[in-house]
Amino acid sequence: MSKRVFMKIAYDGTNYCGWQIQINGITVEEVINRELSNLLGEEIAVIGASRTDSGVHALGNVAVFDTETRIPAEKICFALNQRLPDDIRILESKEVPSDFHPRYCNSTKTYQYQILNRKIPIPTKRLYTHFVYMDLDIEKMRKAAEYIVGEHDFKSFCSNRTQVENTVRCVHSLDIEKKDDVIYITISGNGFLYNMVRIIVGTLMKVGLSVYPPEHVKEIIDACDRNVAGPKAPACGLTLIGIEYEK
Amino acid sequence: MSKRVFMKIAYDGTNYCGWQIQINGITVEEVINRELSNLLGEEIAVIGASRTDSGVHALGNVAVFDTETRIPAEKICFALNQRLPDDIRILESKEVPSDFHPRYCNSTKTYQYQILNRKIPIPTKRLYTHFVYMDLDIEKMRKAAEYIVGEHDFKSFCSNRTQVENTVRCVHSLDIEKKDDVIYITISGNGFLYNMVRIIVGTLMKVGLSVYPPEHVKEIIDACDRNVAGPKAPACGLTLIGIEYEK
Repeated sequence: MSKRVFMKIAYDGTNYCGWQIQINGITVEEVINRELSNLLGEEIAVIGASRTDSGVHALGNVAVFDTETRIPAEKICFALNQRLPDDIRILESKEVPSDFHPRYCNSTKTYQYQILNRKIPIPTKRLYTHFVYMDLDIEKMRKAAEYIVGEHDFKSFCSNRTQVENTVRCVHSLDIEKKDDVIYITISGNGFLYNMVRIIVGTLMKVGLSVYPPEHVKEIIDACDRNVAGPKAPACGLTLIGIEYEK
Repeated sequence: MSKRVFMKIAYDGTNYCGWQIQINGITVEEVINRELSNLLGEEIAVIGASRTDSGVHALGNVAVFDTETRIPAEKICFALNQRLPDDIRILESKEVPSDFHPRYCNSTKTYQYQILNRKIPIPTKRLYTHFVYMDLDIEKMRKAAEYIVGEHDFKSFCSNRTQVENTVRCVHSLDIEKKDDVIYITISGNGFLYNMVRIIVGTLMKVGLSVYPPEHVKEIIDACDRNVAGPKAPACGLTLIGIEYEK
């Protein structure tokens, strides 16, 4: 009898062309499908929750797949980790109802963006932070963040090449903390448009550099026009922290 | 007129065969000598403070060199960073008296070792922590650490292939903290023998796993025999935090 298995997945995105299978390079989804198929002896194609971009990291992406295997679902993570390269790890595996779909269930996704804000970069932080030389004013960034929180049409924060009809999303929280030289921007919401987190961060950086006043972020939201928002911040600073599903 | 320039250096040791020039592979010293010589148009050979092992990281190693250049010493770091690969950065450069030697001056060196202690590794931490699956008891490790602090003959904690005559060193402090899944072991002293920090950490891990009682560390010190101490912990978990010179 077939069962549906849920997996919580962490990866270092540095050496991958993102999650989703594509022709230009190796992806996380492709490596997991290949190693799961080898392990279970059946052709497996996982369904991922978040199609993270090239270079983006994850501490808790989610994927499910159906299998005939007799290996208990809880044990699959340990067996699969033996086969995966060390920049991908399955943190948990468990059986879920056969109608559970990681993208169509209501959920809260949390991302964190890390900015290294100092005069000279630190080599051991280069893979997981975005380096910014100019001082960022985090008080201004926090003020700007208040306009982002809540339910809005985030069309201005969505890369143009997507064709989603509904660009309304709800951002539950957007916290900005600084510890030593690193600024941590943590954002949770019920869903994010294509590149939305990176465009929000790019816009907040413009505010932090005093290019925009914080209030300008309200105008950017109201404009519903990608061209008025800030640039997309680089991928390496972004980590998908986790996804919580409603019961 | 010649001047002596002091540099504070950070690097990700992952892709280097340590600090010191050798025939087996590329080293940090070699890359810095090459790029400094290119920048200044003279043959430069730096004198490093700490010859970190293959795979060990640094946030504050120190090196000096003599040069005829008219570039102000304070500006050299910025010019050199333009030429260095992104896993090496000069954090500071300044002129020092011509008799300053980074190894023969009295100094305090601080190292930190990071252990990721959980059931499944985290890919984004794999390059800078050592993964340990079994639970480590940090209270026992702290008790054992008390025996290490102070002036002792650390012969038991020195890899055999060195020929130093005097193996007495003073460890000023050895702190063990845990935050989330990471154990941070921070050790300061007036000098460290070859592999001494990694052998201390390997011994503390044996205590944390209850293989040795904490009191056994006193016997290990007294034995003055490398064979009775624990194994050398892996290089990737170790970072040279900094070196403070006495005025």
